[in-house]
Amino acid sequence: MSRPRPERVIIFDTTLRDGEQSPGATLNVEEKLAIAHQLALLGVDVIEAGFAAASPGDFEAVRSIAEQVGSADGPVICSLARAVKADIQAAAAALQPAAHPRIHVFISASDIHLQYQLRKSRVEVLAIVAEMVAYAKDLVEDVEFSPMDATRSDPDYLYQVIEQAIQAGATTINIPDTVGYRTPKEMEQLIQNIQANVPSINQVVLSVHTQNDLGLATANALAAIEHGVRQIECTINGIGERAGNTALEEIVMALEVRKPYFNPFLGRSVDSSESLTRIKTQEIYKTSRLVSHLTAMQVQPNKAIVGANAFAHESGIHQDGVLKHRETYEIMDAAAIGLSENQIVLGKHSGRSAFRTRLEELGFSLSEADLNKAFHRFKEIADKKKEVSDWDLEAIVQDELHVPIESGFQLEHVQVTCGDCTCPTATVTIVKPNGKIFTDAAVGTGPVDAVYRAINRLVEIPNQLVEFSVQSVTEGFDALGTVTVRLRSDNCLFTGQASDTDIVVASAHAYMTALNRIHRHLENRAKHPQPDVAGILF
Amino acid sequence: MSRPRPERVIIFDTTLRDGEQSPGATLNVEEKLAIAHQLALLGVDVIEAGFAAASPGDFEAVRSIAEQVGSADGPVICSLARAVKADIQAAAAALQPAAHPRIHVFISASDIHLQYQLRKSRVEVLAIVAEMVAYAKDLVEDVEFSPMDATRSDPDYLYQVIEQAIQAGATTINIPDTVGYRTPKEMEQLIQNIQANVPSINQVVLSVHTQNDLGLATANALAAIEHGVRQIECTINGIGERAGNTALEEIVMALEVRKPYFNPFLGRSVDSSESLTRIKTQEIYKTSRLVSHLTAMQVQPNKAIVGANAFAHESGIHQDGVLKHRETYEIMDAAAIGLSENQIVLGKHSGRSAFRTRLEELGFSLSEADLNKAFHRFKEIADKKKEVSDWDLEAIVQDELHVPIESGFQLEHVQVTCGDCTCPTATVTIVKPNGKIFTDAAVGTGPVDAVYRAINRLVEIPNQLVEFSVQSVTEGFDALGTVTVRLRSDNCLFTGQASDTDIVVASAHAYMTALNRIHRHLENRAKHPQPDVAGILF
Repeated sequence: MSRPRPERVIIFDTTLRDGEQSPGATLNVEEKLAIAHQLALLGVDVIEAGFAAASPGDFEAVRSIAEQVGSADGPVICSLARAVKADIQAAAAALQPAAHPRIHVFISASDIHLQYQLRKSRVEVLAIVAEMVAYAKDLVEDVEFSPMDATRSDPDYLYQVIEQAIQAGATTINIPDTVGYRTPKEMEQLIQNIQANVPSINQVVLSVHTQNDLGLATANALAAIEHGVRQIECTINGIGERAGNTALEEIVMALEVRKPYFNPFLGRSVDSSESLTRIKTQEIYKTSRLVSHLTAMQVQPNKAIVGANAFAHESGIHQDGVLKHRETYEIMDAAAIGLSENQIVLGKHSGRSAFRTRLEELGFSLSEADLNKAFHRFKEIADKKKEVSDWDLEAIVQDELHVPIESGFQLEHVQVTCGDCTCPTATVTIVKPNGKIFTDAAVGTGPVDAVYRAINRLVEIPNQLVEFSVQSVTEGFDALGTVTVRLRSDNCLFTGQASDTDIVVASAHAYMTALNRIHRHLENRAKHPQPDVAGILF
Repeated sequence: MSRPRPERVIIFDTTLRDGEQSPGATLNVEEKLAIAHQLALLGVDVIEAGFAAASPGDFEAVRSIAEQVGSADGPVICSLARAVKADIQAAAAALQPAAHPRIHVFISASDIHLQYQLRKSRVEVLAIVAEMVAYAKDLVEDVEFSPMDATRSDPDYLYQVIEQAIQAGATTINIPDTVGYRTPKEMEQLIQNIQANVPSINQVVLSVHTQNDLGLATANALAAIEHGVRQIECTINGIGERAGNTALEEIVMALEVRKPYFNPFLGRSVDSSESLTRIKTQEIYKTSRLVSHLTAMQVQPNKAIVGANAFAHESGIHQDGVLKHRETYEIMDAAAIGLSENQIVLGKHSGRSAFRTRLEELGFSLSEADLNKAFHRFKEIADKKKEVSDWDLEAIVQDELHVPIESGFQLEHVQVTCGDCTCPTATVTIVKPNGKIFTDAAVGTGPVDAVYRAINRLVEIPNQLVEFSVQSVTEGFDALGTVTVRLRSDNCLFTGQASDTDIVVASAHAYMTALNRIHRHLENRAKHPQPDVAGILF
């Protein structure tokens, strides 16, 4: 994995670290595990599982992923760490169960960050790099180092910092374009300059981490590959802080679709047909849906590769062209990313074994207990709908298994009357954490508002609604709708999501999920006051 | 406008032509006019208003925009035309009221298109280019020519086609990357080769039109600018067929944020502070919202520049950095694109003049009749909500004015009962086109399904629901929700959108809007059978 200049591109996925830092995209441990399992299926080389020192929850997530996904034939599992001993120790401890652990140490190298954020001199930072990379190297073999804000750093100082990190034992050097500022040509020049001016650069794998503030993340990463970079840090659907990161699916499919163009840059003959990454592209679409579902970060229809329209044609001439000869307008086959027509396979008369078989075909292998829960839910849905599609099934499994019912408040019953000439009125029954049952009613400006006001009368957790959205999961009138709710409380964002054929019922459950997350957060905070260590990004 | 090599970048907006070809994004004439007015406010140089020959509706849209937006101090108004006389005549006729009309003639130049779509030889196509560009030039001074699928064409043949078009009178030559296939470096080489091998290239403005299939549209357009291209074809939010086009906001803000980098490519000194385009960047956010609302194409939170998260920070260290010194992590100021905190200014006691003043501040100047309609709606909303924000106001105006009530079926009344232990039941009253009133009820799997089934019993227009989504327009529990419904009928997609504090009521109205569009489409088709001329894209 850490051989210099491998003849393929190493895919370093940071969906669970940088991606999870998208406002409101917070994931719990179970959700992170579900994504990590899928990333392993997708074939990523490295999973950045989190930032172990950030919180006990982050530590637990990194440790669980290291244990359950970091097998000998599995991906490298990585934890981020600031260039301080406590962070590096936490990373090493959390990664201990992984067969291939990596510690990713970072510190800023730009004067603006040194001055305003670190308040340290260049000499001080250089010494920290030497000491902390060596410290990490004592704990694990595979150490990645990132000079944060590299693209705004003084080049000569940047070369020194990088050389220092290599001398101290780093095996991968990652160049972050922290503010998403650079053009592809500048990225090329920077990479060329690093290759020319850092004496030991050939001993390590060179990597880039490009942010998307100007819409250039993918182009910058590809430009870097043309000049010897062999690791790309990226996320599913390009999520991440602000405008996000390089999208894994764009990098991988660009390398796949334009293989003859990229082959020579990797020392291959133009017509080599071997893949330039180890990604199983047929898993891309499913991974995209899973991440979008669990993070509640929607993918716009015109998103490259995984958007709903990416393979859809509207204009008559195009349709005509496509029918006459597919390559007239399409450079990719939808099947290459695992996108096929939505097949309707199950109905209310389908039995348990058909249900289990179909889930297995969809890549879900459930325990008997989980299968029972999911089957029970499937029967409820199938009673209301004539046909249950693959996407309904995925929603059911994700709802039942990956968003487990949190301890806390439970919604027993909800009922609503609304319309354009009536005052929307909701009645709800809730079981409180102490087991007591309460019922109350409220009026509102609409059915969801009425339900939320009725719930608020019983739950009494202060919060502000930031976002409310509904997506139909499948086509058809009786489709499952997925409701996403984002609440602000205690200066943090909390997300809840639920699916149901009744969007008012789904709204109620999504709201309860988010409220329970706030409840748990407030309880944890009371128990474990947080250290002054928060998330970080490049 | 058509001076060769202007020392700034000409922004050619094709939201209304290529953007409108996004599946389901179909706009009516009023909606196209609203967008065209906003594009003029935004300061685009050229508005591609449509493809006049495609249908009577497209012709009418181009003509109305030419008349109402194409003033002497306004933008160039452009119509697309295939390289056939009838198309060019239709374009010229529709553009007749414009002070600065442009006809945009295109024909494929790649062998794959010649063989499978046009079924013509290279020699035949060359003759068509000469004849049709000259024909357009007889009708208007400003003629743009596009060799479709240029990036997959044989270079030598491409040079001949371009030279032919220039000799015949083209003033702008546009190079489309029709399949979104190229990397920035290839785009650079292609532009350099065209400059070197087309003898008369210096007599025209060179343009590019880049599709986003691999996520490289913006990077390819910027690479072209570095090599002398002076017009960029782009769309708001990057909408368009498949993965869409170059996003106007990304190009404009990259040129703005990285002015010192791009200045020398446009023959300016590095530290020139003059803008590289004529775009009023403060209008970007509002234009993005308007286009997203009217096309019902959502913008993902991690979209560069205009996504909800583009200026939002989550990680603690970042927030800290931002507080300490804004430039630590931000390269742009949200105010630069007109994004400010959502200001709450009106409530139920606000009067007409406050309402009118605020709308004017928001850039809406309404006729007395439109103001009355909008004020009536505002009062209804203000009765239900304590506070009405700017975004609510925009939703009200857009709902009332830009999606006028179509002739057809009207929803008089809707009422619903639902919940997790009741069978969702809806009652609706509808006025049919003949003025007769009917009421019926239905049960469904949820409140929306029940409403739709009840409406179907009365309206009887066959259709299939393709997409159903709800977005909250504002923060807060009593926010307006905007419901978007996409239906498939007669092999086309139809969109309906409506806002209300009650999402069930909004769903009913959105469904009725989409049904009325199908109704009108079916009636028109019966009256005017369509010619075999459909939309086209590059």
